[in-house]
Amino acid sequence: MTRVLLATRNAKKLTELRRIVAAESITGLEVVGLADLPPFPDAPETGATFEENALAKARDAVRETGLPVIADDSGIAVDALNGMPGVLSARWSGRHGADDANLELVLAQLNDVPEERRGAAFVCAIAYSFPDGDEGTLRAEWRGSVIRERRGTGGFGYDPIFVPEGETRTSAELSAEEKDAVSHRGQALRLLVPHLKALAQQA
Amino acid sequence: MTRVLLATRNAKKLTELRRIVAAESITGLEVVGLADLPPFPDAPETGATFEENALAKARDAVRETGLPVIADDSGIAVDALNGMPGVLSARWSGRHGADDANLELVLAQLNDVPEERRGAAFVCAIAYSFPDGDEGTLRAEWRGSVIRERRGTGGFGYDPIFVPEGETRTSAELSAEEKDAVSHRGQALRLLVPHLKALAQQA
Repeated sequence: MTRVLLATRNAKKLTELRRIVAAESITGLEVVGLADLPPFPDAPETGATFEENALAKARDAVRETGLPVIADDSGIAVDALNGMPGVLSARWSGRHGADDANLELVLAQLNDVPEERRGAAFVCAIAYSFPDGDEGTLRAEWRGSVIRERRGTGGFGYDPIFVPEGETRTSAELSAEEKDAVSHRGQALRLLVPHLKALAQQA
Repeated sequence: MTRVLLATRNAKKLTELRRIVAAESITGLEVVGLADLPPFPDAPETGATFEENALAKARDAVRETGLPVIADDSGIAVDALNGMPGVLSARWSGRHGADDANLELVLAQLNDVPEERRGAAFVCAIAYSFPDGDEGTLRAEWRGSVIRERRGTGGFGYDPIFVPEGETRTSAELSAEEKDAVSHRGQALRLLVPHLKALAQQA
């Protein structure tokens, strides 16, 4: 059994990766999270891109644990904000992880922005850094638009104000399964499958 | 005497344009502001660019007054925010004209951004729309960087956190004359001089 570390403390992300590993019938891989290991200090996320942050997080965890590591960085890129909040999505209001304040700030900033310019994308970059030297980043986007008032209680972050293309519901109104099937993170994780299969075969 | 309207209620901008008209020895032009005319409703600033907003403001004022009109739109474009606050500079915190809140939000958003990525530019677009059909926009930028704590009491908006290239003081620590000589708005107004001279000669 090869242990692979998903460098996150987010239980939902762990569950999602484990679901994909199971769905793809990848045997011989055990996905663990940061909470399953002795703690080490988080590296600060100061990169200019999602990829840079994800790769720094992955390399940091490799150095600390010696395990093969997967790390992600994700956020929302709003067209009328030139692609921001972007890498600052989790601290857009100036306070880290203040989901409500971050989301309300985006709504307020877009107050005068007309419907045709309210496009946005959820973006996910995944970095992998494996002991055999296989290292890289993958990126997926989920296009949609920002509505004017929050709706729905699922998900987290900006889900309540994001309506994906082809949908009338916000991503906070989709079931976890519906969201996994089409979301930025689901897509990016599926791009990772060939790398996971190669890793499992080395064991 | 040809009256030309600078479509603003900002007395400092009016004074600045009058100073430039005097310095360039443009005779026969009287610069008036919105406060000198019967009031009309402001058009909302919903453009995606400074130029679009300035031109909309100028055309709106031409329609309302029949005068030759100059209008500006300006703001700060922060590199690490992909050029935002940009056209949303005056309402970045979600509240229009809340200078302190807007500036504090930018400082907080840049908290984890290292020195080498704290570049920014003050940008000014000026639109002119004259009865002879001369119409257009001009743009000037003033490069610098965003510091970590406000300094200085001059100016307005983001001046207290902006240090121009080649300076150690913030733009809020420069005298009005020093600022006019190099600022985005000063530069843009000087680009306008040939158009003002042509306007004055028609009278």
